[in-house]
Amino acid sequence: MPDAASDGEVDRFVRDLDREAEAGGYHLNPDREFTRDLVRGLLANRERYGYISCPCRLASGNREDDLDIICPCDYRDPDLADYGACYCALYVTADVEAGVRAADPVPERRPPPGEQRRQKEERATAGAAPGTLKYPIWRCRVCGYLCARSEPPETCPICRVPRDRFERFIGTSGKETPVLTGGGIARIKPRTRSPRGSYRIDR
Amino acid sequence: MPDAASDGEVDRFVRDLDREAEAGGYHLNPDREFTRDLVRGLLANRERYGYISCPCRLASGNREDDLDIICPCDYRDPDLADYGACYCALYVTADVEAGVRAADPVPERRPPPGEQRRQKEERATAGAAPGTLKYPIWRCRVCGYLCARSEPPETCPICRVPRDRFERFIGTSGKETPVLTGGGIARIKPRTRSPRGSYRIDR
Amino acid sequence: MPDAASDGEVDRFVRDLDREAEAGGYHLNPDREFTRDLVRGLLANRERYGYISCPCRLASGNREDDLDIICPCDYRDPDLADYGACYCALYVTADVEAGVRAADPVPERRPPPGEQRRQKEERATAGAAPGTLKYPIWRCRVCGYLCARSEPPETCPICRVPRDRFERFIGTSGKETPVLTGGGIARIKPRTRSPRGSYRIDR
Repeated sequence: MPDAASDGEVDRFVRDLDREAEAGGYHLNPDREFTRDLVRGLLANRERYGYISCPCRLASGNREDDLDIICPCDYRDPDLADYGACYCALYVTADVEAGVRAADPVPERRPPPGEQRRQKEERATAGAAPGTLKYPIWRCRVCGYLCARSEPPETCPICRVPRDRFERFIGTSGKETPVLTGGGIARIKPRTRSPRGSYRIDR
Repeated sequence: MPDAASDGEVDRFVRDLDREAEAGGYHLNPDREFTRDLVRGLLANRERYGYISCPCRLASGNREDDLDIICPCDYRDPDLADYGACYCALYVTADVEAGVRAADPVPERRPPPGEQRRQKEERATAGAAPGTLKYPIWRCRVCGYLCARSEPPETCPICRVPRDRFERFIGTSGKETPVLTGGGIARIKPRTRSPRGSYRIDR
Repeated sequence: MPDAASDGEVDRFVRDLDREAEAGGYHLNPDREFTRDLVRGLLANRERYGYISCPCRLASGNREDDLDIICPCDYRDPDLADYGACYCALYVTADVEAGVRAADPVPERRPPPGEQRRQKEERATAGAAPGTLKYPIWRCRVCGYLCARSEPPETCPICRVPRDRFERFIGTSGKETPVLTGGGIARIKPRTRSPRGSYRIDR
């Protein structure tokens, strides 16, 4: 049974996490007691497994199998874009941080184990179909920063402009030539998925 | 008529802007009285329109139509590369900041309203011609950072090396295959445009 | 004969370098006396040539010919990936910084002058073969950051996750279509090159 982290360790970890989050354009949940509880879970997992796997998911203990749920998990950024918070609600969007809106409940986006295996094999063998990209490439219209994600980031990590200053620079569709700019200002996808499970931040 | 921002608000805004600028490899005009005046204009626009549109341009009041002139505007980086300052001279290059050279007068690069509409429609429909990119992709030879702009940035935002450490990684020409590296060290385009209008910083 | 830098200048330079290194996900050699000696060499070169060329290599004095060895040099990041330190050992990986392992001896990766000339001409003329990229493009699976390097960076400069959270997004092979995602989790190349020369950090 791992030793519980001391309050000092937890505080230090929260402080470091907060500094790195803000530098990259991310935000920790402003409810610091809630955040400290999650960080205690992260530190317990680090003690147990050797890495800070998500405190709201069951880890296998095998780092390679758990890579996608080491915090920040592979699902944080799409969840922030779609629900205003990550699955644990450790990270929230700026408007949720500011209390302007409540985060939606965040359903589990991680595929079930069988599907994870299938995707891993697919990545190891063929990759995507020829002429396609796995994610579109977004371009910050101000500084030219490029990133490949389902949606552009909330804030440009380089020049700090908000999401609506990004444009689609290269699309994913096989019908496009790879270098077709596609374009236009990025539109935020409407939230159509039905909310299930997990934490709410609606205080 | 919006309330004028207090001196404390202006100072705080300048300080935040300065920290973010330096973190991203940008520089505020070192004439702090001049900079404070521009920031007063930004804050007045925020009060008036809800966003910090450029204090040196007339905003429409419709955020979507004004996206390109919300500060930092879409034209800042090409203006820094070509003239040593943005249109307002809120942002300047390192050599202008250091007083090594004066910024050139900066002509208005924003297209007239009719042309803006045309470009917006073009982006919404066809995009660029097949086989072309809207901007070349530049690569930092030191850290591999990629960005898509007309010229490479003054300073790599990741590893802080200067512009001449960038190389053209993917060109824009339709004659190139998309993945042709093109290459060579980035050359700074000679300044051939005739200077017109706007502020000078030649003190 | 250039003036030697004062202790104050050296300290200031080390402090600035350290702050920028950490912000970008890099680490200075924790042996501060060793680091201060290297920085004295950098400042002597700045006095002599006008730029901080590598203190462990002979500069030509012509900036354009020396671009690849201005610190941080073009070879730092591949050397960090392969040996745990740059050629000078001014920069080291996190595990070397933490004393968990010693850096390997770092052979000179810079090509001899004739080969440098050949590569420069090649870049200036044809570029790479059609359908190929000079470097693969890596994608951070967490934040979507893209960079073009032989191996992914030790730490994502945007969201701070370690190297094994990167995936190959676009490969270099001419057989791949440019937009084939390739993929899978990045694997660290085994160190097969025989160690030669240079500094060791095995204290």
